[in-house]
Amino acid sequence: MCQLLGMNANVPTDIMFSFSGFARRACEHADGFGIAFFEGRGVRCFVDAQAANRSPVADLVQSYPIRSTHVVAHIRKATEGAVALENCHPFTRELWGRYWVFAHNGDLKDYHPRLHGAFQPVGDTDSERAFCWLLQEMAKSHASLPAPDELTRTLNELVPQVARHGTFNFLLSQGEVLWAHASTRLHHVLRQHPFAQARLQDADITMDFAQVTRPGDHVALIATEPLTVNEDWVPFSPGELRVFDGGLWRPSLA
Amino acid sequence: MCQLLGMNANVPTDIMFSFSGFARRACEHADGFGIAFFEGRGVRCFVDAQAANRSPVADLVQSYPIRSTHVVAHIRKATEGAVALENCHPFTRELWGRYWVFAHNGDLKDYHPRLHGAFQPVGDTDSERAFCWLLQEMAKSHASLPAPDELTRTLNELVPQVARHGTFNFLLSQGEVLWAHASTRLHHVLRQHPFAQARLQDADITMDFAQVTRPGDHVALIATEPLTVNEDWVPFSPGELRVFDGGLWRPSLA
Repeated sequence: MCQLLGMNANVPTDIMFSFSGFARRACEHADGFGIAFFEGRGVRCFVDAQAANRSPVADLVQSYPIRSTHVVAHIRKATEGAVALENCHPFTRELWGRYWVFAHNGDLKDYHPRLHGAFQPVGDTDSERAFCWLLQEMAKSHASLPAPDELTRTLNELVPQVARHGTFNFLLSQGEVLWAHASTRLHHVLRQHPFAQARLQDADITMDFAQVTRPGDHVALIATEPLTVNEDWVPFSPGELRVFDGGLWRPSLA
Repeated sequence: MCQLLGMNANVPTDIMFSFSGFARRACEHADGFGIAFFEGRGVRCFVDAQAANRSPVADLVQSYPIRSTHVVAHIRKATEGAVALENCHPFTRELWGRYWVFAHNGDLKDYHPRLHGAFQPVGDTDSERAFCWLLQEMAKSHASLPAPDELTRTLNELVPQVARHGTFNFLLSQGEVLWAHASTRLHHVLRQHPFAQARLQDADITMDFAQVTRPGDHVALIATEPLTVNEDWVPFSPGELRVFDGGLWRPSLA
């Protein structure tokens, strides 16, 4: 199965610590990885059909502090679609003059939605088809970029129509808020004042966030499985869509 | 002024040698850079609002042999639009289930084409507006992905409509062929058997291509200014659109 990692923060924050733990999970998820960083409306998306624990691109991400408010990362274990660059998540498209980034964990069985042409998959994955369908239907519902809470309402209508085809854990962002949906497994943790130490589950690395943050900082991390052993990761319920904005979980928007 | 670099090859080829010379030109072009590599239908696009001679992302590109058949690179001197990630070229969009990559050098004065919504700019540059307009008009002319020579005919109709607004040197690729258009300055060189040594104009580096190629390899390089001092760079005529396919210049397609 693939693994997801997302971050949403109220100040540009680097993800080197969390990505270090995440990348070590690539031993069993060796069919590619990708990570997208929003900086304002711009986005950098690094993808590689090599495993995250062997890729020079992943080395760059681990050693170069790219500061971002919205991050979506994915390590891939191919279930549908060949091991090829065009099948690596996250996928990116433009809608309403914003870039949209999407990564998916799970399988959608016999999922071939009707795509009218505005958003076509380039690769062969059920995931990219689902992303294209979501964008197509969002574009039908809104003529221009709506407020995040309106988009959440639309997603709450659309997502179950995809999720009934299988497992649909995903992360989605347009650089303003980050949506996370769980069919099966997803967790989040909020880091805020007073900041504490966190110890990675997959490596003997400890980070003292008090040293690298200010009291007003808020950072939300979302991951398939908890990345640290001593923080309160909150599991998602099946079918739950959570919205993260400014490093906080906003249940009222969902 | 910005600078362009493109490569088209019949076998996946790395661009480290040419990019080394190109990146040194970033001293005067310090407002960002970007480079896109096609691998099959997939594309990796690295962009950075830092100068190419200071960016860790550019270091990666210079030290890690990414092999590609179609490369589009750009170093930016901001003329319109802030120094920000969303204004860095190349720009990427999907049309007909293919990624399209575009980089522009020049200024389009008061250029605000009518954009109907399928392709909207995310940033503030005349370049991204021109790219969105080209894709919009291409989408109107063809219901699905046409053959390259049909696309060339369409581009020959569309490009002059943009070029009359100013300087419109650009590189465009969908991973099958690479189009290059010059309003003012652009050159190409073809590298093929018998391969010779080439010496960079911007650095004391010589490369013996005979050591790293096979007799059937064909590589076309396109650049604003010649990158090497001892090769035959062919200047473009004003208004000329050239098509590169399999590492060869295909005048018959233009």
